[in-house]
Amino acid sequence: MSDSFFPQDIIIKKRDGGALSRAEIEFFARGVSDGRFADYQATALLMAIFWRGMTAQETAWLTDAMMRSGDVIDLRDVLGPKVDKHSTGGVGDKVSLILAPLAAACGLKVPMMSGRGLGHTGGTLDKLEAIPGFKVQLTVPEFRAILVQVGAAMIGQTPQVVPADRKLYALRDVTGTVECIPLICASIMSKKLAEGIDSLVLDVKFGRGAFMKRKEDALALARAMVDVGKAAGKPVRAQLTAMNQPLGRAAGHTTEVIESIECLRGRGPSDLMAVTYALTGQMLLLGGAARDLPEAQRKMEAAIASGDALEKFRQMCTAQGGDVRVVDDYGRLPTARKFLTVRAPAAATGFVREVDALKCGHAIMALGGGRAAVTDRVDHAVGISDLVKIGEPVTPGKVLCKLHVNDDERGARAEALIREAVVIAPQAPEPEPLLQELLS
Amino acid sequence: MSDSFFPQDIIIKKRDGGALSRAEIEFFARGVSDGRFADYQATALLMAIFWRGMTAQETAWLTDAMMRSGDVIDLRDVLGPKVDKHSTGGVGDKVSLILAPLAAACGLKVPMMSGRGLGHTGGTLDKLEAIPGFKVQLTVPEFRAILVQVGAAMIGQTPQVVPADRKLYALRDVTGTVECIPLICASIMSKKLAEGIDSLVLDVKFGRGAFMKRKEDALALARAMVDVGKAAGKPVRAQLTAMNQPLGRAAGHTTEVIESIECLRGRGPSDLMAVTYALTGQMLLLGGAARDLPEAQRKMEAAIASGDALEKFRQMCTAQGGDVRVVDDYGRLPTARKFLTVRAPAAATGFVREVDALKCGHAIMALGGGRAAVTDRVDHAVGISDLVKIGEPVTPGKVLCKLHVNDDERGARAEALIREAVVIAPQAPEPEPLLQELLS
Repeated sequence: MSDSFFPQDIIIKKRDGGALSRAEIEFFARGVSDGRFADYQATALLMAIFWRGMTAQETAWLTDAMMRSGDVIDLRDVLGPKVDKHSTGGVGDKVSLILAPLAAACGLKVPMMSGRGLGHTGGTLDKLEAIPGFKVQLTVPEFRAILVQVGAAMIGQTPQVVPADRKLYALRDVTGTVECIPLICASIMSKKLAEGIDSLVLDVKFGRGAFMKRKEDALALARAMVDVGKAAGKPVRAQLTAMNQPLGRAAGHTTEVIESIECLRGRGPSDLMAVTYALTGQMLLLGGAARDLPEAQRKMEAAIASGDALEKFRQMCTAQGGDVRVVDDYGRLPTARKFLTVRAPAAATGFVREVDALKCGHAIMALGGGRAAVTDRVDHAVGISDLVKIGEPVTPGKVLCKLHVNDDERGARAEALIREAVVIAPQAPEPEPLLQELLS
Repeated sequence: MSDSFFPQDIIIKKRDGGALSRAEIEFFARGVSDGRFADYQATALLMAIFWRGMTAQETAWLTDAMMRSGDVIDLRDVLGPKVDKHSTGGVGDKVSLILAPLAAACGLKVPMMSGRGLGHTGGTLDKLEAIPGFKVQLTVPEFRAILVQVGAAMIGQTPQVVPADRKLYALRDVTGTVECIPLICASIMSKKLAEGIDSLVLDVKFGRGAFMKRKEDALALARAMVDVGKAAGKPVRAQLTAMNQPLGRAAGHTTEVIESIECLRGRGPSDLMAVTYALTGQMLLLGGAARDLPEAQRKMEAAIASGDALEKFRQMCTAQGGDVRVVDDYGRLPTARKFLTVRAPAAATGFVREVDALKCGHAIMALGGGRAAVTDRVDHAVGISDLVKIGEPVTPGKVLCKLHVNDDERGARAEALIREAVVIAPQAPEPEPLLQELLS
């Protein structure tokens, strides 16, 4: 039946502002994979969608069709509430590394499929791979086994999951059709819904270091994703968070793994713990592991205090082939040749007014710890630690951050970027709330 | 220098409503041919152009870049004013067959490259090929020789002329980006400017049987084409003409060749002659062959009355390998097996209110005389003659048209379409002016 469509009729319908039918959207999502929708027709439609948008109903159908373009993991035989978290990405965002073992310690199953870093934002898979031996490419049976045994497993997407997204994303990337809310929504949600989850918490970031610079765009994306979840029968909550400065005090790979373990030891920076607790707390509510937020908070704090959360991290690390000794000996992680301490200049007094997350991300890239193209290799050892936070007082010589450097010339470029990123002013700035709207 | 562009940057600029630079447009026009602008990127840009439009300056640059994507014919050594005409196409529009020899008889050189029919509109090349032996695929030296010797040559585009247009048109055709004024303008004008002309007259049609249904679109296209001509330093005039009913009383191939020869004999229908004289008259003014329209009119009428125009037709026909005996013996043209006379029903009295050109075009297709796809073969013998005109009185049994039929079943379908096309009403309709705005 859907065989009777011509791609150009679908393109023209969207071009003229019409809403596509479910059958048309399915023809498109299948057609980009099987070739009946040529690449040059797909990109014309993508631009028409960029122009005309999609209704909530069209977005839900597109998500569903993309999800069904490949394998959908069936975790119905895994006991317990299966809840995942996804972040739209930022700088220093290592929440997943803390949240997954923490939620598992509180009784949830966390089947997390993550991505790699690109541009100024880091990726969970790359951070995990800083741990010697840690395997992120597991088969679905291995993934399932660790989920049952440990309660949390963190892997990369298998090639069989949502192949239509891989194809569409590659086309969007080179045709100026990336920044389009229904397409972003369908891309994220199709992959998450293919994981076999019961419910999902989203961290939708906005600001200088985020994909969405403007809060209204982040709100629109959050709303679209929550609605798609609803249409798929999966409860989804979206937490808006500010991403103008990096999250925590570390950015990079080894540096972020260390900071995550410190968090699990109860020694994490307050902003990072606030976001981790907010997101994990919503997961506990969705999964029925807590009746209300105060109870969730008590459970999470207890799991950290008791060492249960860190123990889950150790178990997951071991199960995925990683060298668990790194937990007690950070020196076993890839370590940079030298530290470069960046200090406030002699004349500086006042307060940190800005720590530009985008520029910090560029500093990581300058050090060799980022990816300009998907094929680039990252240097896990380099990065930033001990980074100042907005609002902190500054006196001459104060440490602004430590750079973990493997190459002097790269270190110099990174320092210059950090000096641009950190703005010192006589007065303390108005604090910006880190946790903002929660949509459900 | 232009090597440093990334296609996606150009796409994003247009997507966001920006005006492209000359270098960006040249990179695009060259890139679609040499592969640096992938097809899937070209179509995203085409959709962005459809959405955002192009300024007159961008359109002129695109036209120029497309023209220079292939050979530009140099006719500077051909003496005399080289003036061509182009029509945006309609039903029964055989003006080129009359105008080219007529203008040549009045002292112009007419280097005409035409196209084939597609859908409900006929093509000049197909009509010429109804004449046994008539060759429309000539080399440029052959084209030039006939132009010098006869004064008019009518051929198909050589493959070396504007290859970028062939590529872009094929992509537009399957991606819903055909009906876009700057792209239509650049497509038409790049081909015409590549002919080596000094000036150009355009027949921009609007109405039921035209490509542009709405007059405002036709006006906008006419304006864009005149401006592009100006930017290229070539005077261009655009005549808007109504295309709600077919032009003349014949449609098809053999039927239109016969009607054209009748026009050259001074026995043509008045509407067809009015358009032919209006367009040829403007050509004579542009080419300096007449100082004003009355002088142009006298010259054209004299060329018909003296037989000079018909003699030019004979010469051109002979030079291009056609059987010139058809001029005096229409029976040598491909002839249908039977005539089917369509008559007004017994109850009909009043006036012809409508002769829907689009439905007449579909009747030609039903008979086998059209092309649904570019690869279809046309039956030159079939067609329509003796078609009624809007405003004519109707009594029961009046001949509405004669169908030239090679297959009874096809004939029946064509008759049904003609009966839908011809609307009879008690009162005569308000006459619609055939010749409307003239832009220069």
